[in-house]
Amino acid sequence: MKSMSARQSAILLVDAPDARGQVAEVSGFLYRNGANILEADQHRDDLSGRFFMRVEWDLEGFRLSPSEFASVFGREVAERFRMTWRVEYSSRPLRVALFVSRHLHCLSDLLHRRQTGEMPGDFRLIVSNHPGAAALAGFHGLPFHCIEVAPDAKEAAERRQLELLEAERIDLVVLARYMQILSPAFVDRWPRRIINVHHSFLPAFSGAKPYHAAFERGVKLIGATAHYATEVLDDGPIIEQEVLRVSHRDQLEDFVEEGRDVERLVLSRAVRWHLEHRVLVSGNKTVVFR
Amino acid sequence: MKSMSARQSAILLVDAPDARGQVAEVSGFLYRNGANILEADQHRDDLSGRFFMRVEWDLEGFRLSPSEFASVFGREVAERFRMTWRVEYSSRPLRVALFVSRHLHCLSDLLHRRQTGEMPGDFRLIVSNHPGAAALAGFHGLPFHCIEVAPDAKEAAERRQLELLEAERIDLVVLARYMQILSPAFVDRWPRRIINVHHSFLPAFSGAKPYHAAFERGVKLIGATAHYATEVLDDGPIIEQEVLRVSHRDQLEDFVEEGRDVERLVLSRAVRWHLEHRVLVSGNKTVVFR
Amino acid sequence: MKSMSARQSAILLVDAPDARGQVAEVSGFLYRNGANILEADQHRDDLSGRFFMRVEWDLEGFRLSPSEFASVFGREVAERFRMTWRVEYSSRPLRVALFVSRHLHCLSDLLHRRQTGEMPGDFRLIVSNHPGAAALAGFHGLPFHCIEVAPDAKEAAERRQLELLEAERIDLVVLARYMQILSPAFVDRWPRRIINVHHSFLPAFSGAKPYHAAFERGVKLIGATAHYATEVLDDGPIIEQEVLRVSHRDQLEDFVEEGRDVERLVLSRAVRWHLEHRVLVSGNKTVVFR
Amino acid sequence: MKSMSARQSAILLVDAPDARGQVAEVSGFLYRNGANILEADQHRDDLSGRFFMRVEWDLEGFRLSPSEFASVFGREVAERFRMTWRVEYSSRPLRVALFVSRHLHCLSDLLHRRQTGEMPGDFRLIVSNHPGAAALAGFHGLPFHCIEVAPDAKEAAERRQLELLEAERIDLVVLARYMQILSPAFVDRWPRRIINVHHSFLPAFSGAKPYHAAFERGVKLIGATAHYATEVLDDGPIIEQEVLRVSHRDQLEDFVEEGRDVERLVLSRAVRWHLEHRVLVSGNKTVVFR
Repeated sequence: MKSMSARQSAILLVDAPDARGQVAEVSGFLYRNGANILEADQHRDDLSGRFFMRVEWDLEGFRLSPSEFASVFGREVAERFRMTWRVEYSSRPLRVALFVSRHLHCLSDLLHRRQTGEMPGDFRLIVSNHPGAAALAGFHGLPFHCIEVAPDAKEAAERRQLELLEAERIDLVVLARYMQILSPAFVDRWPRRIINVHHSFLPAFSGAKPYHAAFERGVKLIGATAHYATEVLDDGPIIEQEVLRVSHRDQLEDFVEEGRDVERLVLSRAVRWHLEHRVLVSGNKTVVFR
Repeated sequence: MKSMSARQSAILLVDAPDARGQVAEVSGFLYRNGANILEADQHRDDLSGRFFMRVEWDLEGFRLSPSEFASVFGREVAERFRMTWRVEYSSRPLRVALFVSRHLHCLSDLLHRRQTGEMPGDFRLIVSNHPGAAALAGFHGLPFHCIEVAPDAKEAAERRQLELLEAERIDLVVLARYMQILSPAFVDRWPRRIINVHHSFLPAFSGAKPYHAAFERGVKLIGATAHYATEVLDDGPIIEQEVLRVSHRDQLEDFVEEGRDVERLVLSRAVRWHLEHRVLVSGNKTVVFR
Repeated sequence: MKSMSARQSAILLVDAPDARGQVAEVSGFLYRNGANILEADQHRDDLSGRFFMRVEWDLEGFRLSPSEFASVFGREVAERFRMTWRVEYSSRPLRVALFVSRHLHCLSDLLHRRQTGEMPGDFRLIVSNHPGAAALAGFHGLPFHCIEVAPDAKEAAERRQLELLEAERIDLVVLARYMQILSPAFVDRWPRRIINVHHSFLPAFSGAKPYHAAFERGVKLIGATAHYATEVLDDGPIIEQEVLRVSHRDQLEDFVEEGRDVERLVLSRAVRWHLEHRVLVSGNKTVVFR
Repeated sequence: MKSMSARQSAILLVDAPDARGQVAEVSGFLYRNGANILEADQHRDDLSGRFFMRVEWDLEGFRLSPSEFASVFGREVAERFRMTWRVEYSSRPLRVALFVSRHLHCLSDLLHRRQTGEMPGDFRLIVSNHPGAAALAGFHGLPFHCIEVAPDAKEAAERRQLELLEAERIDLVVLARYMQILSPAFVDRWPRRIINVHHSFLPAFSGAKPYHAAFERGVKLIGATAHYATEVLDDGPIIEQEVLRVSHRDQLEDFVEEGRDVERLVLSRAVRWHLEHRVLVSGNKTVVFR
């Protein structure tokens, strides 16, 4: 039941110290209040001793309004288990900003998937340090903001970007091959809400020019990684990775060209899973409830 | 938590008409009786309207004996939801018989995985219509029964096989490239308890000589399928499939040779999942809780 | 050396009865005439006794004009070995027509790859039996022809299509999810020059509604196949196939949605290989020199 | 034509500065001397300006003995192009020594493939620093040498190993999960003739405990790498790599267990390609003619 449907649903996400009876309590609570569960998954991380849960239910017949849920679930269940939790409603899709530079393949892929209806989320705007994406943005009817990032005026550029994101109340920033490094201050304001795609199989070849490094090393597979951006470059929690076979016949340009297919695949998966509230962060790792 | 552990556990498997509250009831019941849930998964099949569930819990601290569980769970939960259910205990591994003909790669793979400890199950005996597997059986310390199948004496051969299976109270028959067709009567006696590996990506190339047919057709991927045997040849519920890339350079012998790797992979996965009670059958399909 | 370059090159394609000395003769001939070989590959099909060869060389410094090549190569080499052969020049890219119906993901993918420069070929026009692709065609600056195919006026529609193809001297017709069945007469006029994508792993699930059939059968992998169209539906020489893992959680809509990724991958590979003159047909199979 | 056959063949391997006409000269030379070419492949490395070639021909009807070939080919072709070259004869398979420690899955896999006939090479002996592999060696009829490697007596152990390798005139040493680090002196004596399998997708997680590091980092794919051993640990030319999908459900033990399948796959491929003389080393990369 991964495909999106027209029905109105709610999704509860839980992160708590592991304890017996949590599944029973949560599912009992939902049942008592008239929830028809569409999908449920949970995970116990033995190392950290944390418990993670995702439950999605049909709102048809459910007896609690969002504000009622917050107070009743907190009192009856969450407090007892010291749960960190939130509920997301399908009627309130996440608001997305796309950042891009010169290479448009990831952007084009995300926009195409949005058009076919397979990508949820409310796409609000496209930001780029190059004018090249304007036509594509126009074709898809999205506002396009070209904000050049001069080496000595990075701060000013980020200030303008932040104003845009705040004006549009953005929930998720997608770096779809945005080749500028964001400042720690910027990243800090959007914890676990910036998804980046790095064109290597991390942690191999982090940093600049990963295809060059992979070509140099003579690897037999090249890859791409979608991860949450953190202060440390290319070091955030990994959401998805994929690889592609190469051979001695492939030149550097072939790596670049064929790599695009894996880049757009991992980024579109990661973005979709985030927008469907399937990704929970546990330390520097992710739990992906697919 | 897929790797096997030393701890004693129980696994509840449920197949029921879909109804609200089943997860809440089952998990509430287990919690009340002291179960520490290790792993749980469920699935609603929209088409058939069936609900499937698998819960595994640590028996340490659990307050119901197997016989108590049967009566109490039936009364308190199962009857109300008209559940078909059973409980499996890790202390009682399934008893396995392996059938093989001339090609030993699947047999060898299963036995090697048993030796490394990654394959659960109580392997009891090996049956073959050829003497070739005797040495391998001996190396792994398993009884070997060579039962020749003369074209006009098939019934007698199957009678002997059945006697062996019954004497050893076999739970699962694995056809590890056993090239004789079992009679419908034989298959009927082991419903959903015979796993076969077919060396094609079913339903393509069912029947005899699938590699020949695949080679003839000029496919670019060859595959293998592990499925439950049913009366209709190569038509039972599919448990696992895998493919492998081939090219115009590959001759028929290459298909045969490289195909072995996929055959043993799909068969070993399917057998392991069955032995871990991860496979439920829904009509002619399988639900695999991995 | 798979990536396209700016240099002018020629590609010789040979199909001949297998005989000793062909590689020596061909490479000797090219060397004597000043060819700098960029890439060469050959294949002997043991079954058919045919020999296939593809050689690409830099035209810089090559001493034969196209017309000279035709007469000299024929006299000095080809006749002796009874070769079927042709030469393609990078300065004369193949002229391509794209046919599409409602589903635009394959079309969109091909056009995006053309835009990034990774897809060779001279894309001339888009034909559809639905108006939906008009905007996409416009965005990419390609003429769009909406030719409705009424059930009782198929012949007329095909006549108009043929006129367009002939007016544009089309070399390759790509059926990018074109859901009308072309008449044998139409197919006959473009032998081995129509590439179709079928949304199943052929020969499994040929014909209509392959995802429905795959879902019904409970397969664990879904696939797509790019092949040359022949008179017999879904039976032509296979150029490329790819698969994707699915599970019991995937509903029919998920098959359709996730299947799009494999469809566009196999079609874009097949079209690119054809445009790079990498595909030779041997009976009902293909030799793909990658 | 990758599968091994009974016919007697010779394989010429060439590494030379790139120059026009080499393919023509080599194939012309072979043709003049009666060679029936079975398989040929070549590669031009643009960066290093080197040319690599592998030609295999049937010896039936070939007019040069090994010693004649050496002098005639050198004089007529090789010297002119300053080729580094050698010829291998199928009648003289490479002599192989297998090194192993506690984990026997790679060893078992190689021995099983040898038994089915798909792995060429003349397997001479097994060396281990643990007694565990003795039974497996015995089952396969191979001499087993248990040479313990005390921390302070490494040199003595390597001396004994070298004596064995020299006595048996070993051509290839396969480190099939041999967990001792070989001294630079040892590695130097077998340049490009020691194949190691490292249980990570190099260059990620080189060094000790790669599965621990991968688990710690939260990767979504785990891998294995087969490479030639060089003085610098885990840094030699990569022959083959493969990966496997993991998820948050997989614990460290699952990484270890499932990783075995990729380890044995990459090692068996690399060893086979080496034994079939398909691997040429170019700087720190490999050219694999498959």
